[in-house]
Amino acid sequence: MTDCLIGVLGGMGPLATADLVQKIIVSTPADRDQDHVPLVVWNVPQIPDRQKALAGTGPSPLPVLLEAIRALNKLPLSHIVIPCNTAHHWFDALTAASRAPLLHIADATLAAMHKHVTVPPQVTGLIATHGTLRAGWYQQRLAAGGNEVLEPTPQEMEELFVPGCYAVKRGELIEGGVLLEQLADRLAKRGATRLILACTEVAPGLAAVNSRWLARSIDTTQALAQACVELWQQSRASY
Amino acid sequence: MTDCLIGVLGGMGPLATADLVQKIIVSTPADRDQDHVPLVVWNVPQIPDRQKALAGTGPSPLPVLLEAIRALNKLPLSHIVIPCNTAHHWFDALTAASRAPLLHIADATLAAMHKHVTVPPQVTGLIATHGTLRAGWYQQRLAAGGNEVLEPTPQEMEELFVPGCYAVKRGELIEGGVLLEQLADRLAKRGATRLILACTEVAPGLAAVNSRWLARSIDTTQALAQACVELWQQSRASY
Repeated sequence: MTDCLIGVLGGMGPLATADLVQKIIVSTPADRDQDHVPLVVWNVPQIPDRQKALAGTGPSPLPVLLEAIRALNKLPLSHIVIPCNTAHHWFDALTAASRAPLLHIADATLAAMHKHVTVPPQVTGLIATHGTLRAGWYQQRLAAGGNEVLEPTPQEMEELFVPGCYAVKRGELIEGGVLLEQLADRLAKRGATRLILACTEVAPGLAAVNSRWLARSIDTTQALAQACVELWQQSRASY
Repeated sequence: MTDCLIGVLGGMGPLATADLVQKIIVSTPADRDQDHVPLVVWNVPQIPDRQKALAGTGPSPLPVLLEAIRALNKLPLSHIVIPCNTAHHWFDALTAASRAPLLHIADATLAAMHKHVTVPPQVTGLIATHGTLRAGWYQQRLAAGGNEVLEPTPQEMEELFVPGCYAVKRGELIEGGVLLEQLADRLAKRGATRLILACTEVAPGLAAVNSRWLARSIDTTQALAQACVELWQQSRASY
């Protein structure tokens, strides 16, 4: 067939990984099974908690992530993607250990945003873990495009984001969605006209409560899905 | 951790595979990411069409399925499951080629049915591909339990099942669901009091139209999900 076979280093959490797979399938123009993106999904969630590791309250996930990269590289993968923003903290170490190139979720997101060239710079609310906020991937890229970036306050992180995110991880999507929707409302009150959902747990939570914010959000999982579909389409075109 | 790592030989179709993963996640009692079933999902749909192969109108999928089994066996899998009933036509050949044992979807389904010991034998409508109907896996097991089995007529297969199934494969879930719902109604009119959804495309189609039949159906994908969750729970208990 083609040489496209995309590995998904997932499990962080398992539901966010399933959400990526679903979004890849739905985003692929397909008349039959065989038109769909070939994927190998490592959905093995026995990985130390990334947020706790970055907060200094738990062990590093890096050894287990490297094991997963080694396992995935036993297969003839063309690319690897990671449907977890926070895990991109270890992106360089994982890239160095992988034969198959890794795609960065923030690059996929910014590529998706740049397709909407008619959208002027906006006040952009950033919903993400402490680790992702500190890393600055999105702020730097957004600022370069002239966007003002709004982050949650420490109190909003503690009372809304963190419990919302972990509720989704427990499978309590509505409970999580209600908290994340409140966080979106707070950012909107402070002036955000759109949001970046830069934690892959957020979109499933907001979807569970049919959040009106989804329509004004950039979903990093959807952007990563779109990048996977484009890799597949390019590979088929060149075949 | 444990020695449980379940491989999913999927892609037949990709949406049915995503449905299995979703059902495994939802069926797992979990407080955090790490409580979820460790899965490696081969969702590579570039496999010759199983229904056409069995009808003698297309090439055999066996060589590609064997390649997938060989690839999956490079990973330390404890078991392999296949979320496609029709592909079980090649179950023995795949089992012979695999170090990791394969679980048969009909065994998982009958195990799930036997848990409901209070349910008396019923007139059971069987929704499946021609290949699965001819194989007799479900009819034999159901008859052994004293159930009468109703199959779709050749005309119902041609006008409702086959186009319904392929519509789901194209991602047209509502179109497919409407046709599959009509088939369920026909079987009910002829006396079926419950259904076995023995093609993994059927449950996503019926779910898309909120079919009242779902509540009276045995979903083979859900049964396979339950079997996966039980393997994981046994492995954790013995750890």
